Amino acid sequence: MSDPSSSGPSSSVAEAIAKAARTAFEQSQLVDVSERDLALRAIREVLEEKKDEVLKANKADMEAAEGLLSQGKLSKSLVSRLDLSRPGKFDAMLQGISDVASLPVPTGQVTFAKEIGPGLDLHRVTCPIGVLLVIFEARPEVVVNIAALAIKSGNAAILKGGKESLRTATILSQLIAEALSKTSIPPTFIQSVSTRSEISSLLAQDRYIDLVMPRGGNELVRSIQNNTRIPVMGHADGICAVYVDQSAVEEKALRVVVESKTDYMAACNAAETLLIHSSLLPTLWPKLASELMKNNVCLRCDPSTLSAIQDIPESSKFVTASTEEDYHTEFLGPTLAVKTVDNVNEAVKHINSHSSHHTDSIITEDEKSMSIWCKGLDSANCYVNASTRFADGTRYGLGTEVGISTGKTHARGPVGLDGLVIYKYMMRSRNDKGSTIADYEKGETRYTHKDLVKSEPPF
Amino acid sequence: MSDPSSSGPSSSVAEAIAKAARTAFEQSQLVDVSERDLALRAIREVLEEKKDEVLKANKADMEAAEGLLSQGKLSKSLVSRLDLSRPGKFDAMLQGISDVASLPVPTGQVTFAKEIGPGLDLHRVTCPIGVLLVIFEARPEVVVNIAALAIKSGNAAILKGGKESLRTATILSQLIAEALSKTSIPPTFIQSVSTRSEISSLLAQDRYIDLVMPRGGNELVRSIQNNTRIPVMGHADGICAVYVDQSAVEEKALRVVVESKTDYMAACNAAETLLIHSSLLPTLWPKLASELMKNNVCLRCDPSTLSAIQDIPESSKFVTASTEEDYHTEFLGPTLAVKTVDNVNEAVKHINSHSSHHTDSIITEDEKSMSIWCKGLDSANCYVNASTRFADGTRYGLGTEVGISTGKTHARGPVGLDGLVIYKYMMRSRNDKGSTIADYEKGETRYTHKDLVKSEPPF
Repeated sequence: MSDPSSSGPSSSVAEAIAKAARTAFEQSQLVDVSERDLALRAIREVLEEKKDEVLKANKADMEAAEGLLSQGKLSKSLVSRLDLSRPGKFDAMLQGISDVASLPVPTGQVTFAKEIGPGLDLHRVTCPIGVLLVIFEARPEVVVNIAALAIKSGNAAILKGGKESLRTATILSQLIAEALSKTSIPPTFIQSVSTRSEISSLLAQDRYIDLVMPRGGNELVRSIQNNTRIPVMGHADGICAVYVDQSAVEEKALRVVVESKTDYMAACNAAETLLIHSSLLPTLWPKLASELMKNNVCLRCDPSTLSAIQDIPESSKFVTASTEEDYHTEFLGPTLAVKTVDNVNEAVKHINSHSSHHTDSIITEDEKSMSIWCKGLDSANCYVNASTRFADGTRYGLGTEVGISTGKTHARGPVGLDGLVIYKYMMRSRNDKGSTIADYEKGETRYTHKDLVKSEPPF
Repeated sequence: MSDPSSSGPSSSVAEAIAKAARTAFEQSQLVDVSERDLALRAIREVLEEKKDEVLKANKADMEAAEGLLSQGKLSKSLVSRLDLSRPGKFDAMLQGISDVASLPVPTGQVTFAKEIGPGLDLHRVTCPIGVLLVIFEARPEVVVNIAALAIKSGNAAILKGGKESLRTATILSQLIAEALSKTSIPPTFIQSVSTRSEISSLLAQDRYIDLVMPRGGNELVRSIQNNTRIPVMGHADGICAVYVDQSAVEEKALRVVVESKTDYMAACNAAETLLIHSSLLPTLWPKLASELMKNNVCLRCDPSTLSAIQDIPESSKFVTASTEEDYHTEFLGPTLAVKTVDNVNEAVKHINSHSSHHTDSIITEDEKSMSIWCKGLDSANCYVNASTRFADGTRYGLGTEVGISTGKTHARGPVGLDGLVIYKYMMRSRNDKGSTIADYEKGETRYTHKDLVKSEPPF
């Protein structure tokens, strides 16, 4: 691969945007943390005041989208997500700002404190990451939501929403900048870009941008990972599984499997694979299959699960033989891949090699199976007798959610404000002569490495 | 850039290595944590027993290196770092294994525990990242050191050392595998590769490898970042600065500046830039400059600092005018870039835009300057009146160090065992019917989100 530093027509614009974000971030570090909540309040007030302008822009986006919908170029669900004029939607967006403001501040927390030696203290203190580049779908309220999270955590952000929401996103960004200009947070703390070419130029700005967060499918995440040196916290596929173990209680299995599959099929935490313990093929499995077919779920079955249900009348309509590819597929719709396994270890092995390490649930009464499941699975969320649909920042009580990370570093699973911080070490010498390592390594001073109470940060 | 999936001659070998590492990692997750220490002990025993074989291979590496040294193709310091037969070196390597074994286990720690609702508990538990690819310099003992850290933290690892240490690294890897084959940890848990082409093929194995850790210069880190989708925890440049503020105490300034620059000039935590408050130009600065020149440090000065010391006799030998590039340079030798600033804010601004965000120290008695320094600097280690040379995992009391990360995500600054873990969420329902979100969102059950005592993990 070649170096991603590009020199296309938009690269100088991208550099200017990224540099402005970095400067805004650096300036904001000396602003008192309480100003972040004042900024959030100012944004809420401006948006309330200019509601009509926002809805007017949104109407234009909606009209364009409906035109494309009638030509079959957009999906109905996309158009519906665009609409800010639906009852309660705008107010919910405003309330979201206040909700974020009321969360605990994630920065300035001491996570490690040691006396290195006499008069020499070391604190590890949480701080913002820096400049975020967030790429998301055509949902205009996400502009406001991400802006609020970035401000609360002290990170500057560059936002890019789906192109169908461009008019709404643009006015929302302008109003956010207008609100910030009345506060101590620089107005360029939150910026928006509108075109894909700007994104590709921004991906070369690793000098100024610290983290890229693509919210979207696997393809978007991989394409970004292929084109930047900047760390990527991506939300890729959600290929989640439920495994019904030998000791499963029927009612638990029925309730959890049916909800995990059918509650919201386009969600990343919906089940796409069902694993059945071989002992259940003649007993629980046909009941479960009937229940799924009642919910119009098509079953792609391996030979054993297929033959166990072929006498059920509905099966001719809903059941087909599976292919290997089905077990790697995020259907996002009414299709479920089904497979027989002989024990929990085999289930874990299948999931580790086929899933997207997102969320998987076991139905079992056996403590040993639970333990093998939770220890052996390499997934962000390992559940016992609970629906995969619980995998969500709000349901976890994290307050709000930046996204669900399928990565293995920094933050994993539902990411709250905590996932938007890193830390720095602060060391202060109170010795008359300052502190050198020679005092310790060539002199008389001894390293104590004594734990200190983790209280307030030193500065 | 093109997709990094390669199909060169070594790509199938690389895939086999990466897959074997992944399988070893997955198998090891069900092995009791205490077995990790037994494996470390077994490695120590085998290495003790086979010391002669190791030293024989090392002798061959040394002879080849000395040949290259005499042709001027290798540096003396590289050859000296290769040598495992120096007094105490081999024993120190063995002791390192025992030291790692005695550290607290970083996995299985509960970092968040909540009751989601009645009978439904959620725990966030630290766990290994998975498979690490570690690339390091030609220091054979690092093979053993990294293997010990990987085993202790439960991560499988693929190692690649500098080519000059190949014979020693190969035998060490074989002995580690031999030791592991007598334990419950799979022998492919630690593997070595020997060529650069294997590395580039391994960088395409993002399906199996979770984190790349290049220990080396900026160029190595950037080249790896350009060629992989796998997250990179790199140790890039160390462009560290000391700033002498208006209120600095002379003795502190002299001691800290001189040590930061001269103690070990090739270290990443050595100072490369010195910032002087303008009020000190006629007073403290000439004394400091004399002291640095006594230590044979060449000073690259801006006009103000240059004119303030041009009457010192030694200056004709040691002082030259600086260029902008000097302030971006990691000299790794007896050269220091010097610049005047008018206040701490200007110093912070200079460092944020010129440094590598590694370690910077202020010399001051002023609390406000300290606060601006520690809050405003975007560096991993922000010091007050202390030498930059303290930036080190052992000096921090982290027990041992994987490296020093100059990144902004996952882990920053000196990285100990804690930097080799991530977490997973474990959720368990104890309800008679299992748990669904419908119970909460369409039924009578209420989310409680009550904090639980963070004790043992549930499994």
